Amino acid sequence: MALRGPLFRLLRPQLGQTCQQSRAQSVAVLGAPFSRGQKRRGVEHGPKAIRDAGLIDRLSGLDYSVHDFGDLNFHHLEKDEPYMDVKFPRSVGGANKMLSGAVSRAIGAGHTLVMLGGDHSLAIGSVGGHAQQCPDLCLIWVDAHADINTPMSSPSGNLHGQPVSFMLKELTDKMPDIPGFSWTKPFLSSSDLVYIGLRDVDPGEYHILKNLGIQYFTMRDIDRLGIQRVMEVTLDHLLSRKQRPIHLSFDIDAFDPSLAPATGTPVNGGLTYREGIYITEEIHNTGLLSAMDLVEVNPTLGATREAVEATASLAVDIIASSLGQTREGAPVSILEIPSVKDDTEQLRL
Amino acid sequence: MALRGPLFRLLRPQLGQTCQQSRAQSVAVLGAPFSRGQKRRGVEHGPKAIRDAGLIDRLSGLDYSVHDFGDLNFHHLEKDEPYMDVKFPRSVGGANKMLSGAVSRAIGAGHTLVMLGGDHSLAIGSVGGHAQQCPDLCLIWVDAHADINTPMSSPSGNLHGQPVSFMLKELTDKMPDIPGFSWTKPFLSSSDLVYIGLRDVDPGEYHILKNLGIQYFTMRDIDRLGIQRVMEVTLDHLLSRKQRPIHLSFDIDAFDPSLAPATGTPVNGGLTYREGIYITEEIHNTGLLSAMDLVEVNPTLGATREAVEATASLAVDIIASSLGQTREGAPVSILEIPSVKDDTEQLRL
Amino acid sequence: MALRGPLFRLLRPQLGQTCQQSRAQSVAVLGAPFSRGQKRRGVEHGPKAIRDAGLIDRLSGLDYSVHDFGDLNFHHLEKDEPYMDVKFPRSVGGANKMLSGAVSRAIGAGHTLVMLGGDHSLAIGSVGGHAQQCPDLCLIWVDAHADINTPMSSPSGNLHGQPVSFMLKELTDKMPDIPGFSWTKPFLSSSDLVYIGLRDVDPGEYHILKNLGIQYFTMRDIDRLGIQRVMEVTLDHLLSRKQRPIHLSFDIDAFDPSLAPATGTPVNGGLTYREGIYITEEIHNTGLLSAMDLVEVNPTLGATREAVEATASLAVDIIASSLGQTREGAPVSILEIPSVKDDTEQLRL
Repeated sequence: MALRGPLFRLLRPQLGQTCQQSRAQSVAVLGAPFSRGQKRRGVEHGPKAIRDAGLIDRLSGLDYSVHDFGDLNFHHLEKDEPYMDVKFPRSVGGANKMLSGAVSRAIGAGHTLVMLGGDHSLAIGSVGGHAQQCPDLCLIWVDAHADINTPMSSPSGNLHGQPVSFMLKELTDKMPDIPGFSWTKPFLSSSDLVYIGLRDVDPGEYHILKNLGIQYFTMRDIDRLGIQRVMEVTLDHLLSRKQRPIHLSFDIDAFDPSLAPATGTPVNGGLTYREGIYITEEIHNTGLLSAMDLVEVNPTLGATREAVEATASLAVDIIASSLGQTREGAPVSILEIPSVKDDTEQLRL
Repeated sequence: MALRGPLFRLLRPQLGQTCQQSRAQSVAVLGAPFSRGQKRRGVEHGPKAIRDAGLIDRLSGLDYSVHDFGDLNFHHLEKDEPYMDVKFPRSVGGANKMLSGAVSRAIGAGHTLVMLGGDHSLAIGSVGGHAQQCPDLCLIWVDAHADINTPMSSPSGNLHGQPVSFMLKELTDKMPDIPGFSWTKPFLSSSDLVYIGLRDVDPGEYHILKNLGIQYFTMRDIDRLGIQRVMEVTLDHLLSRKQRPIHLSFDIDAFDPSLAPATGTPVNGGLTYREGIYITEEIHNTGLLSAMDLVEVNPTLGATREAVEATASLAVDIIASSLGQTREGAPVSILEIPSVKDDTEQLRL
Repeated sequence: MALRGPLFRLLRPQLGQTCQQSRAQSVAVLGAPFSRGQKRRGVEHGPKAIRDAGLIDRLSGLDYSVHDFGDLNFHHLEKDEPYMDVKFPRSVGGANKMLSGAVSRAIGAGHTLVMLGGDHSLAIGSVGGHAQQCPDLCLIWVDAHADINTPMSSPSGNLHGQPVSFMLKELTDKMPDIPGFSWTKPFLSSSDLVYIGLRDVDPGEYHILKNLGIQYFTMRDIDRLGIQRVMEVTLDHLLSRKQRPIHLSFDIDAFDPSLAPATGTPVNGGLTYREGIYITEEIHNTGLLSAMDLVEVNPTLGATREAVEATASLAVDIIASSLGQTREGAPVSILEIPSVKDDTEQLRL
């Protein structure tokens, strides 16, 4: 562990120009109140719920300069007929185009980006905008679902189950021309992606995962290997050849529904709180996180107010842990244990 | 793992005649609404609760031909005085005799059997009937309790705490002639049995377990070794010398009471959801499961309706996982990822 | 494991005179209804809540002679102004002085001591009194917090966050003369202490832990290593050079708040029930536990009566497990499995 962390931050020579900036000091928070990638209304209130749970204060307490850019203002389309079975293609495409630009500008300005969803279809724009600035990024996708259906393999037609298929170069010739998506083209190789937490994989998705040889860890794999080993293999797979920026796309439904009930497609047997924190601690410790999504918090779906608050609070914990909050305590600028001579002063922080 | 699963199913040359049939294609569900093996009424409604939680649909979705044989109709005995301290001996004996015959016929007809209890005294008939067809079976007993008291060692006299003592050849001379049980005799060796999940073992049971050298894993052992290693040792212990049919007898109280509250004798510190699923996935992956019990769901004991539904739903998950439901996704008959040429069709499954 | 347990009890040649007595047979329970080490009222009702949850019966069932010495009667000070920022220094000092004497006498009389808090500032007197009789003791501190702030480094001034700093010889010159504490002086070396469960460490505490090279396991360490390995290293660190008495100081907030909600400073991501039980089983198995604290159960803080009862019941489980309750079953004085000849008798226990 000694070689990860602050040292890595200083030693990122391989990153592109805009990816070399002192990202660690400045965090941009960007809300994306969008829900047309799936059928349950309410997930557009996710950014407000996560902010209300104290996100900005928590990040400010971590030594960051926090820039809250507020919420994107997505255009509402009156008419957006399905294409094949794909629902709301122009709405999803348009929102992601707007998001992509905003993310690219924030990364380009040197911020570490935190995107608050909204549904997971937003990753098309979020990862895409990040890749515009940092073309060699790698992607860690923490989720109960693989979200890698193509428009043809999707059983539901909801685009929040398909974003990864829009990113992968290897799927280029499997993708039809969906209206609303002419602005984007695949930018990621399947070897640049690792999944963690899968436990509800559609047959078509299974086929894609296996065909492309994508590295993925289901909950069964976590049960077999333990989360420590899973993260070791994940980071080795993505970073062993070269250090490069990490995009973390975290779907709150990766957690067990007992911890994150306020979400649209919960699946039993998910991550424990501690596993989620461990994943994000390990990612932070690389010193390479440059953008993250936190999606699918839907405050209208919790059975009680406590359930909603627990889910939003969990989202804050995950973001804070990704950005350096630690369970181990942290060094501060204390040169020595305060001695008795100082006994009328408080500890100088 | 590559050698387990479907391949094993094809390569089961050592099994007896009726155990060689193509069990994987056909599941028989048999309800046993019986509660006289213990003192709390309500566990006789277990089969209905588990069916109401969607069992039949779930199994049908797993590529099985599902035959629901309904519930056995047990005779009510007006007069059934205790023998020594053993309560309701003739009721328990009679119910198990009937169950034994039904299980034997279902196995003989080539089904994989799923018995829905009722209390755990029913294992006498269920495992016994299975053994009539498959004398070389082995038994995996997942439970908070060892259920291996003899009528003389039992502190309570309830027969749901004693079924294993009726099965074991090594205990033959420790068993009195209990009225109602003349139809059965011991059929299992202590080396053919492994326990998983124990955490409330009576002193007499401890003595029997140690004396007979039975392989058992308490929750402490799971804490020490991890569930992955526990299953490795379990399957090695039972199957390393020869492949043979597995009987899984699963008491819902193996789970932590926070997950399975609606049961008669809950004990803190039980299996997590993921451990339970892992156990059953591993058993399924042997390709050797030929019968299973799911017992002790008592829908009158949950504090709320949600508690009851959670318990019954957990029972369905365990049965489905034992029969092949997977967290990893599953291959289907797709030859390739659907290409754009197909773009007006749905994925052909 | 074979060398631990009862055998160790017989082979404790290195212990001092009063520490050699047959401690295993006799347990002293001592209540310390004190709450001035922190700001939330109610933790002074902890001893009653833990007794009401059945502590004495549980310990009596473990083959112990249990001596309940009731609650200490602490003097209420009308006037107790802060010293620097330290709150209620004379009250905390006085209570600990009284407790220290009582603990010393109980240990001296040959009991294994169980101290029921009250807040964790009481460890100053409890560990201190134990050390008077057993100067070579070692200390295992199970807690979400390190409780090692000095009066100068403490952000809150609450003494329940500072008790360890009063014990450590290495901090002697960092400690001011707090009124109320002239009766005690540091008695423990930093190598005699191991922490388990930390997840909320103040910056000053981090500095002290690192500076003194104290062995500690955060929740992250437990995630990385597993509780089995954590206990192995803990016991090796403390006992490998010589067998010596153990003081276990267990703060109920080491557990996850979902298990122990009725406490004053809960922190997410704590110990599971099974991890807590495993820790205490391992400590019991050394045969060297001679005193323990169970602190910070605050029955006025649970949201519901069930929440309070769950917390108190968990405290009882932890104490019972520390004193030998086992999940594996236990041998009793049965020479053989009762045979059919005995069939009108009950099992002789």
